[in-house]
Amino acid sequence: MSGYLNDDTTAEEFARQSELYTGFTTSVRELVDATIRTEVDDAEIRRAQAEIDAITARLRSKQLEGSYGVRFSSHGFTRPWGNAVMGLRNPIAPPLSITNFDDGRAESEFHLGAAYEGPPGLVHGGVSALLLDQLVGQAASAGGHPGMTGTLTLKYHRGTPLGDLYGKAWIRETDGPKTFVAGELGDAEGPTVTCEAIMILPRWARERIASSPDRVPRLFE
Amino acid sequence: MSGYLNDDTTAEEFARQSELYTGFTTSVRELVDATIRTEVDDAEIRRAQAEIDAITARLRSKQLEGSYGVRFSSHGFTRPWGNAVMGLRNPIAPPLSITNFDDGRAESEFHLGAAYEGPPGLVHGGVSALLLDQLVGQAASAGGHPGMTGTLTLKYHRGTPLGDLYGKAWIRETDGPKTFVAGELGDAEGPTVTCEAIMILPRWARERIASSPDRVPRLFE
Repeated sequence: MSGYLNDDTTAEEFARQSELYTGFTTSVRELVDATIRTEVDDAEIRRAQAEIDAITARLRSKQLEGSYGVRFSSHGFTRPWGNAVMGLRNPIAPPLSITNFDDGRAESEFHLGAAYEGPPGLVHGGVSALLLDQLVGQAASAGGHPGMTGTLTLKYHRGTPLGDLYGKAWIRETDGPKTFVAGELGDAEGPTVTCEAIMILPRWARERIASSPDRVPRLFE
Repeated sequence: MSGYLNDDTTAEEFARQSELYTGFTTSVRELVDATIRTEVDDAEIRRAQAEIDAITARLRSKQLEGSYGVRFSSHGFTRPWGNAVMGLRNPIAPPLSITNFDDGRAESEFHLGAAYEGPPGLVHGGVSALLLDQLVGQAASAGGHPGMTGTLTLKYHRGTPLGDLYGKAWIRETDGPKTFVAGELGDAEGPTVTCEAIMILPRWARERIASSPDRVPRLFE
């Protein structure tokens, strides 16, 4: 299984990989959407399946043993590209492009299509939870208080329609290793889901900070 | 956007579609995994992308206008096949095969691979929330108390490793339109995430039950 990997990826290499994998993964996301919505006949489905199996076999001829993990470069580039919410290489991720603010906020605007459905025409309540968990984590990190989610409480005010949405999270308070973060998800009409999270800095990370206080440990990025 | 659709799908047609789309969607899930993990060279990635774009265009030549929705058949077959957690036609869904018990329980065993990663080697905390939201909803429905999630509170006890996992949920208490459901997710070592949910039966559904008490309204299935 992959972990936190460090390498010497340069700006040029980072840009090359970003362009290559953004294009490729975007195409796979389109296929995911078409897989759910297609109404072509059985023969066409079976033909598509055989072709996809052949492509997958070629891609798997050289692949990571486990998951992608998170890659750090000595030149300052982070690649959390397998992440289920914002991973550039993960077709399951919408992906969320999140803007982090160093006063402890994180914001994103995004579109959710057929793949994120729960009740008909609505975003799956658990998908809202998934996205908010990422946002509260990033808000805490952005404000200099990284932590693992300890508790996450979600309140569902009304259904979230599939389509154009926003999400945001912000630090409300910090108390030693605990950071209290609030968040919300919504559409043009306003919030649909709100949340409160308690992020906790693990003991090993607290000890690392105590020994070198100038360096905030990497939990997620 | 699709809604709750009713049709006359027969047992034979249901079986035929299940077989066709299970195979096809399983292949797309494999491609999703390979997309994250592949290390083949750029030329091979670009070639795969061009082929995938061509397949997607063929699939889109005839497709639903919106999302899949939930389909009911007069013969008793339900197809929640676009669902982000258990949708047979949704490549994003692991998918969870959930066993429902009429005493108000829902259980599932499943495997989560690279596509569900958050911290390196661990399930994204939000993915755990996503799966638990589905499980608490199904436990409530299975026990005859369907509802929309009103509040969901998750406690993260330790990281959930990618791999073989279980999830379960059970009704703890009911109080009029509110159903209190507990749930947990875990691995062979025991629980990693626990939750409490309050499911609420919407007013329109309560009114429908009042007018025809023998028929529990369809919220999700």
